[in-house]
Amino acid sequence: MAVIGNKEYFKGINAIKYEGKESDNPLAFKYYNPDQVVAGKTMREHFKFAIAYWHTFCGQGSDPFGPGTQNFEWDQSSDPVQAAKDKADAAFEFISKMGFDYFCFHDFDLIQEGATFAESEKRLATITEYIKQKKAGSGIKLLWGTANCFSNPRYMNGAATNPDFNVLARAGGQIKLALDATIALDGENYVFWGGREGYMSLLNTDMGRELDHMGQFLAMARDYARAQGFEGNFFIEPKPMEPMKHQYDFDAATAIGFLHKYGLEKDFKMNIEVNHATLAQHTFQHEMQVAANAGMLGSLDANRGDYQNGWDTDQFPNNIQETTEAMLVFLKAGGLQGGGINFDAKIRRNSTDMEDVFYAHIGGADTFARALLIADKIVNSSPYEALRTKRYSSFDSGKGKDFEAGKLNLRDLYEIAQDNGELALQSGKQELFENIINQYI
Amino acid sequence: MAVIGNKEYFKGINAIKYEGKESDNPLAFKYYNPDQVVAGKTMREHFKFAIAYWHTFCGQGSDPFGPGTQNFEWDQSSDPVQAAKDKADAAFEFISKMGFDYFCFHDFDLIQEGATFAESEKRLATITEYIKQKKAGSGIKLLWGTANCFSNPRYMNGAATNPDFNVLARAGGQIKLALDATIALDGENYVFWGGREGYMSLLNTDMGRELDHMGQFLAMARDYARAQGFEGNFFIEPKPMEPMKHQYDFDAATAIGFLHKYGLEKDFKMNIEVNHATLAQHTFQHEMQVAANAGMLGSLDANRGDYQNGWDTDQFPNNIQETTEAMLVFLKAGGLQGGGINFDAKIRRNSTDMEDVFYAHIGGADTFARALLIADKIVNSSPYEALRTKRYSSFDSGKGKDFEAGKLNLRDLYEIAQDNGELALQSGKQELFENIINQYI
Amino acid sequence: MAVIGNKEYFKGINAIKYEGKESDNPLAFKYYNPDQVVAGKTMREHFKFAIAYWHTFCGQGSDPFGPGTQNFEWDQSSDPVQAAKDKADAAFEFISKMGFDYFCFHDFDLIQEGATFAESEKRLATITEYIKQKKAGSGIKLLWGTANCFSNPRYMNGAATNPDFNVLARAGGQIKLALDATIALDGENYVFWGGREGYMSLLNTDMGRELDHMGQFLAMARDYARAQGFEGNFFIEPKPMEPMKHQYDFDAATAIGFLHKYGLEKDFKMNIEVNHATLAQHTFQHEMQVAANAGMLGSLDANRGDYQNGWDTDQFPNNIQETTEAMLVFLKAGGLQGGGINFDAKIRRNSTDMEDVFYAHIGGADTFARALLIADKIVNSSPYEALRTKRYSSFDSGKGKDFEAGKLNLRDLYEIAQDNGELALQSGKQELFENIINQYI
Amino acid sequence: MAVIGNKEYFKGINAIKYEGKESDNPLAFKYYNPDQVVAGKTMREHFKFAIAYWHTFCGQGSDPFGPGTQNFEWDQSSDPVQAAKDKADAAFEFISKMGFDYFCFHDFDLIQEGATFAESEKRLATITEYIKQKKAGSGIKLLWGTANCFSNPRYMNGAATNPDFNVLARAGGQIKLALDATIALDGENYVFWGGREGYMSLLNTDMGRELDHMGQFLAMARDYARAQGFEGNFFIEPKPMEPMKHQYDFDAATAIGFLHKYGLEKDFKMNIEVNHATLAQHTFQHEMQVAANAGMLGSLDANRGDYQNGWDTDQFPNNIQETTEAMLVFLKAGGLQGGGINFDAKIRRNSTDMEDVFYAHIGGADTFARALLIADKIVNSSPYEALRTKRYSSFDSGKGKDFEAGKLNLRDLYEIAQDNGELALQSGKQELFENIINQYI
Ligand SMILES: [Co+2]
Ligand SMILES: [Co+2]
Ligand SMILES: [Co+2]
Ligand SMILES: [Co+2]
Ligand SMILES: [Co+2]
Ligand SMILES: [Co+2]
Ligand SMILES: [Co+2]
Ligand SMILES: [Co+2]
Repeated sequence: MAVIGNKEYFKGINAIKYEGKESDNPLAFKYYNPDQVVAGKTMREHFKFAIAYWHTFCGQGSDPFGPGTQNFEWDQSSDPVQAAKDKADAAFEFISKMGFDYFCFHDFDLIQEGATFAESEKRLATITEYIKQKKAGSGIKLLWGTANCFSNPRYMNGAATNPDFNVLARAGGQIKLALDATIALDGENYVFWGGREGYMSLLNTDMGRELDHMGQFLAMARDYARAQGFEGNFFIEPKPMEPMKHQYDFDAATAIGFLHKYGLEKDFKMNIEVNHATLAQHTFQHEMQVAANAGMLGSLDANRGDYQNGWDTDQFPNNIQETTEAMLVFLKAGGLQGGGINFDAKIRRNSTDMEDVFYAHIGGADTFARALLIADKIVNSSPYEALRTKRYSSFDSGKGKDFEAGKLNLRDLYEIAQDNGELALQSGKQELFENIINQYI
Repeated sequence: MAVIGNKEYFKGINAIKYEGKESDNPLAFKYYNPDQVVAGKTMREHFKFAIAYWHTFCGQGSDPFGPGTQNFEWDQSSDPVQAAKDKADAAFEFISKMGFDYFCFHDFDLIQEGATFAESEKRLATITEYIKQKKAGSGIKLLWGTANCFSNPRYMNGAATNPDFNVLARAGGQIKLALDATIALDGENYVFWGGREGYMSLLNTDMGRELDHMGQFLAMARDYARAQGFEGNFFIEPKPMEPMKHQYDFDAATAIGFLHKYGLEKDFKMNIEVNHATLAQHTFQHEMQVAANAGMLGSLDANRGDYQNGWDTDQFPNNIQETTEAMLVFLKAGGLQGGGINFDAKIRRNSTDMEDVFYAHIGGADTFARALLIADKIVNSSPYEALRTKRYSSFDSGKGKDFEAGKLNLRDLYEIAQDNGELALQSGKQELFENIINQYI
Repeated sequence: MAVIGNKEYFKGINAIKYEGKESDNPLAFKYYNPDQVVAGKTMREHFKFAIAYWHTFCGQGSDPFGPGTQNFEWDQSSDPVQAAKDKADAAFEFISKMGFDYFCFHDFDLIQEGATFAESEKRLATITEYIKQKKAGSGIKLLWGTANCFSNPRYMNGAATNPDFNVLARAGGQIKLALDATIALDGENYVFWGGREGYMSLLNTDMGRELDHMGQFLAMARDYARAQGFEGNFFIEPKPMEPMKHQYDFDAATAIGFLHKYGLEKDFKMNIEVNHATLAQHTFQHEMQVAANAGMLGSLDANRGDYQNGWDTDQFPNNIQETTEAMLVFLKAGGLQGGGINFDAKIRRNSTDMEDVFYAHIGGADTFARALLIADKIVNSSPYEALRTKRYSSFDSGKGKDFEAGKLNLRDLYEIAQDNGELALQSGKQELFENIINQYI
Repeated sequence: MAVIGNKEYFKGINAIKYEGKESDNPLAFKYYNPDQVVAGKTMREHFKFAIAYWHTFCGQGSDPFGPGTQNFEWDQSSDPVQAAKDKADAAFEFISKMGFDYFCFHDFDLIQEGATFAESEKRLATITEYIKQKKAGSGIKLLWGTANCFSNPRYMNGAATNPDFNVLARAGGQIKLALDATIALDGENYVFWGGREGYMSLLNTDMGRELDHMGQFLAMARDYARAQGFEGNFFIEPKPMEPMKHQYDFDAATAIGFLHKYGLEKDFKMNIEVNHATLAQHTFQHEMQVAANAGMLGSLDANRGDYQNGWDTDQFPNNIQETTEAMLVFLKAGGLQGGGINFDAKIRRNSTDMEDVFYAHIGGADTFARALLIADKIVNSSPYEALRTKRYSSFDSGKGKDFEAGKLNLRDLYEIAQDNGELALQSGKQELFENIINQYI
C-alpha cells in the first residue's frame, strides 16, 4: 500500500504488481512475486530488496562532463530540513509503490550536511526522528546505514586512512553519529565502503601505516556500536579503484585478509557489489563465492557494469545468465548473512521521465527473481549437482579422504604416484555445464 | 670468467663488462656494476640476478599462433640426457658470460620428462648430478627451484587443486622430487607458482574444497622439505589469470590471506612478478609494498607487460620510472628476504639473433641498476623522505600518537571532532613528488 | 545423413536432431530447427552455420602453458597425405552429423605444410581433389577459404607487411595456392585475417610503408582471383592485438577506412568475430553495426571471450542477451552479404571427451537460433521498433528533413536556435528498451 | 613578463625560468628552454605549449564522489561578467608566468552560460572583447577554440548526433558563436571533441543516421567558418568512450575514415590526446603515427592516464620513455600541422596548494623538452635510423622496388616464391631498439 506524504510525487503510478511473464504491462513485475515460495522461503525473504537512497532520491544524473538532468520535485525547498522531509516522503512513497521492504542510506543522503559539525548533528537528529515516524506507519525497514566520509573536501586524502589525524578524528565523530542514526532506526546492518580509503599515488603514501589506522578505526567503531547495543552485522564493501587509484578494500579476498589481520573477522562480513567485482576483474559470482568460503556472504549491492568501459557505471542489473550463476552460489551458501539485495544502481543520465526509475527497479527485481527460479530448477531438476559431486568423488573415500583428513604426508603421495602409472584424463565438461544453465533459462 | 662446456655456444661474445653510461658498446653494461656499493651493499648483493632456465634455455619463441623460431644449437641431440647436458653447458656459459650468480629452474626445464614417473625420477637424478658439477666449477648458485605441474595434460584441471585425488598425488610425488633436486643443488629457496591452480569455469568447481586441498598440500610439501633439512624460504608467486580464467593466487593480498588461513605464514613469502602485478591491475611497486607490509617481500620476477594488451607478455624490463618506484619500496623494505631478481622474461619471438638474448638481459640489468642508483639518491639527497614524514607527523605525537597506541575510543574522536571546527586542507602534492622522481632520473 | 569415411570416428553419436526446448537430451538441438522459417527464411538459410577446420579438427587443446590434451584418432598416420584424408573423413562425418552445410579452412589445416614450396603445392592439390570428392557426395559446401600466413617462422615479422620483400613474395605465392584451392572447391568467399600483419614494437616499424604494402598486396590477390573467375566476396577479419602488439585491422572502422584508402571497398567486406570485437573494447553488435553502416556486413565468426581476461579465448557462444542484440542488427541489415556463421571456437583444453565438441556446437547453434527467434519477436510484436522510430521523428519532416537533405546552413541552425527557446529533455528510455529485450528472452 | 590584472592571483610566484637540470628549484624549468634550438627550431616553435582554460582555470577538483576542493580567488564574484574577467586576469597572469604563448578554450569556460541563448551570445561577445585586450597587451595567442556541447542537460543525448533535430540546431547555433569568438580572437585552429556524440545504448540508437548527421553538421560548420575568412585547421579529437559508452570518434583511424567518408579530409586533422589513446588500447605514439600516415598530425593534448584504471584521469605528463617515443614520431613527421601542445591535464583533486598547478605544468613541459632532446640525439647520434632503414632495404631496389611501383602481380610473387627456396629469418631486434632508447634517456 502506497505511503503518500503531504504530496504525491509519483502521480499516476500505483503500486507495482506481479502480473506474470505474459503481461505486456511495463509497470508490472513479470517474475518477482514477493510471496511466492522458492527453495523454502518467499522471494521477499530471500532477497530483502532495498532502495539506495543516494541513487534513487539524491542522484540527479550528473557526471564528470555535466550537471544533473533529473530535476526532482522533492528537491525544491531551500530549507534543508523541509527538503529532507520532502525527500523522505518521496522515498517512502516510491519504496511502498515498488512493494519493497527496505532502504539503505548514507548520513548525508538523508539531509544536507551542515556548515558545522554541531549543525550536522542537529540536522541528523531531526531527520532521523522524521524517518522513524515514516517507518512506523509503513513497515519499511532499514537494511543498513553508512556514513559518507568521501564527498566533503576534508576527506580528499581519505578518512580513517587520512595522513592527518584530525581528519581521521572528524571521520570518527561522523561515524559515531551515523551509527547512532542507524541504531535509532533499527538498522539491521552497518556498511563501510572505503570511499577514499586508498591512495592516489604510492609515492606520497605510507600504506602500511594507513592500513594499521584503518584496522584500529574499524575496531573502535565496532566497539562503540556494540556498547550501544547494536547486534547487526558490519559489512565491508570492496571496490578496487575509483575514486582513488587504488582502494584498500580491492576485492573480497583482500578485505577478508585485512579483517583477519586486525581481528575483525567475527563482526564483519562482505557486501558484494556486482560492478565492483567486475572492475576488479572478477565475476560477481566469484566474489560471492570468495565471501561464502569465508562464511562472510553478508549482503549484495545489485547493479551491473559495462564490460567495454572502465569505471563504475552502476547500471541496473539485467544480465540473466550472470545473475543465474550468482543465484547458484547464493542457494548453495544458504542465502545471505543478515543482509539483502540493495539496488545500488542509477538510471542513465538521459533517463529523465518519471517512470524510468520504476522501469529500472522492476527490471532489476525481475532479473533476480527469474534467476532464482532458474537456479532452483537447475539445482533440483538438472544433472548439475550430480555432475559436480561426481567430479570430486575421489576425495569422498579411500586415500583421497585420508588426504582431506590430514592423514597423508608428501612421501605417501610420492608412493601413490609411483604405484598409479599414468592417469586417464577427466573432462571438465565445461560446455555441458554451460548448456545446462541455458537450458533452464 | 666464462664457463665453457664441451662446446662454446655463444661464440664471439665474451664476458659482458661494465663500461659506464658513456659507452656505445651494446654488449656492455652501462649501469650494472656488480661490485659498486649502493646503500651499503654491492649491486651484486642487492640484486642476486638470476637467469630463468625456462625462458632463456628452453623457450624457442612459440606462441599460440605458431611454433618456435629460435633454433638452439644445444637442442640438437635426440638423446634426452645428452640434450639436457648440452643445455646445462649452454646455460652455465651464458650465465657466466653475463656475470650473474644465479639461476632458477622448473624440474622439467632441466631435462625432458620421461614416459613414466620412474623414468622421470631417474632422469632428474642424472641431470642434478651433472649440474652439481657445473655449479662446483663456476660459483653459480641456485636461487630457487620449482616443479612444472601445469604443462603435462594430466594437470589440465590443476595439480594440488585437481578434482581427481590421483592427480593431486602425482603432483605431490613430482614436487617431492623437485624439492629433492633443489636441496641437492643447495637451492636457496623454493617457489610455487600456481600454474593451473584455479578454475576455467566456476560452474564445475568447488572452490572452497579446492583451496582447502591447496592449503593442505603446501603444508605437506613444507613439512617434507623441512624434514630433509631445507632451511630456505618457500615463495608463492601470485598471478591473477592465465592459463586459468581465475588463478587462486590472484595477487599478493589474496595469497597472503591464504597463507594465514592455512597456517603457512611463517615459512612462505612472496615472489612478485611485474607482469603478474599489472595483469591484476596493480603496479609492480604496489605488489611489492603489499608483500613488504606483511614482512613477505621474498623475491622478484623481473619483466614487464604491455599496458595495451591483456596477457603475460614477459618482456624484458626497461621501464626506468616504474623500476625506480619499485626500488624505493625495495630500499625502504631493507631489500628482499632470501630471494633475488630473476629475469622471468623472454626475448620476442622475432628476436632470432644469438646476441639478442644478451641485449635483453643487459637492458634488464641496467634498468634495475640505474633505478637503484636513482632511488638511492632520491632517498638521500632529495626532499622526498622529509615530505613523506611530514605528511604523517600528526600521528607522531599528541592525540594522533594516542590513537596509534590504542588509547582512544570512538567517543574520544567525536569529542575531538566537536572541538576542532572545520579543518584546513593538506595538499597531497602528488605532482611535486612526481617531479622529484623525474629530477633524479 | 552422416557421411562416414573408411572409419567412423564419432561412434555412438548419430545425427543431431532438433527436439525442442523441452528435451532433456544433451545431444539434441533445443532451438536450432534448420527448416523452420523465421522472418521469411529458414534458419539454415539465415545462418549458413560452418565448422572451423582449424579448431575442430586440428586444435588439440595446447596453450602457452602446455601441449595438447585432445588426442584425435584421425591424427595417427605418419604419412601426411593419409593423415589429411583421415582428418577430412572425420570432418565430413562431424559436419554431417551436426547437420551443418558448411566448413571453412586455412590451407595448412587441410594438410601439413611441406618442406618446400613445391611440396606444399603438391600436397594441397592432392587434398583439394580428395575434399572435392567428399563435397560431391555430401552436399557440404565451402563457406570460405584462407591461407595461414602467420604460423610458419618465416612470417614472424608479418606476411604482406613483412619488412623483407622475399617473405612478402612467399606469402603471395602461398595465397595464390589458397585462392586456387578455394576456387577449386567452389568456395563462396575468401578471408584475410591479418595474422601477424601489425607490429610488435613501433620502434622498429615503418607503419605507413607496411600499410601501403598491405593495400597493394590485397589488390593483387583480388585481381588474380577475379581473373580466375572467382565471384565471391573477400572478407577482412579485424582483430586489435594478439599475436602482435598491434594488429593493423584493429576493428571494423579501421579496416573499412583502410579498404577505402586502397580502393578495395567494392570487393571486400567484413568478417566480424565476437571475441575480436570485445578485445577491441567493442560489443559484437557494435562491430556488426559498423560493418552494416558501410554495407559490409559480410560474415560472422561466432564465439565469445571472457570479459575478465585479456586474450582471445574463442569460447563457444552461449550469451543469449548479446546474441539477441546481434540478431537485431542482423535482421535490420537484411542478413549477411555472402557469408555465414562460422564457429571459430574451440572446446576448453580440459574438455577431452569425444562428445564435448558436439555439446559445444549444439550450444552455439542453439544460442543463435534462440536469439533469432527472440529478435524476430521483438521486431514484430513489441513496441521496440516504434520507440526507435519515434525517437528520430524530428528528422522525418520539416526543418529536420531539410537538414538531412542538405538544405540548411549553420546560420539557419543559429536562427532556429534563437527562435526555439530552451528545449524539453527527451528521455532515452534505456531501461525500458532493456526490459523489452529481457521480456522476450 | 608577467601580465597582472587588477589583482595578482599567484602572489609570491614569479615568472618560471629555465635553470637547467642541476637546479634544485622546484619552480624552475630543468629542460624546457624556450629559445634553445633543437632540430632546426626553438623549443617554443616546436611545442607551442598551451594552457587548457577548462582544467586550469575552471576545474576545481570535483569528481563523481565529491565536489571541488580547489577554491579559486578569481571565482568569487557573483556577477558572471566580473567573474569571467577575473578568471581571464588570472589566466593571463598564469600563462605569462609560465612563459607559454598559447591558450585553448571552450566557449563556456570563458564565461558562464546564460539562461537564454541570447544572453549567452551577449556574454560571449563581452568576454571575447575583454580577452582581445588581454591578448593585445601580452603576446599570448589562441591555439584553438571549441564549444562545450556536452555539459548542458540539453545535450544529454548528443549534440550533432542528437535524435532531436532541435537540439542539433541549438548546437549549430552555439558552434556558430564559438567559431565567431575563435575568429575574433585570431584562433589558429578550431577543435571538435565529440563530447556526447556517441551512444549510451545501441538498442535505442540509429547509429548510421546519427553519423550521417554528424558528417553533415561538420561540413556546415566548416563552410560557415571558411565563409567568415577562417583559414585555420579544424581538428577532431578522438576518444573511445566516456561519457558515452561508445564515442563515435573512437580513435584516429576511426575519425580519419569518417572524415574521408563525408568529404572533410581536406580541412580536418587530428588532435591526439595521450589519455584518449590509452583508453582506446593504443599508445600515444601509435595514434600520432596513424594521424601522421594520413597527413593529419594536427595537434596534441598532453596528459597521461593511469594504466591500472579505466577512465580519463588527465594527469600531467611525466612519462619520459613514452614521450621520447612520441617525439620520434613527431620529428619524423616534421612536427605538427598547425597545432601545438595543449596541457589538457588537471592537478589531482588533493593538490590544493597554489603552487601545485605550477609544479604540474613545469613537470609537463620538462617532460616534453627532455623527450625532444633525447629523440633528437637518437635520430642524429645513434644507430636507430640506420637500423630502421636497413630493415626495409629489400624494397629499395630490385623486385621489392617493382612491387612498390605496382609492377608485379600475384603470379609474379608466386614465381619469386618458387625460385627463392626457404628464407633466412631476420631478427626484429626489438630489445636492441629498446636499449638504444634507454641509452639516450
Ligand atoms: Co555499492
Ligand atoms: Co558501484
Ligand atoms: Co614469474
Ligand atoms: Co609472466
Ligand atoms: Co575468427
Ligand atoms: Co578469435
Ligand atoms: Co583533450
Ligand atoms: Co582527457
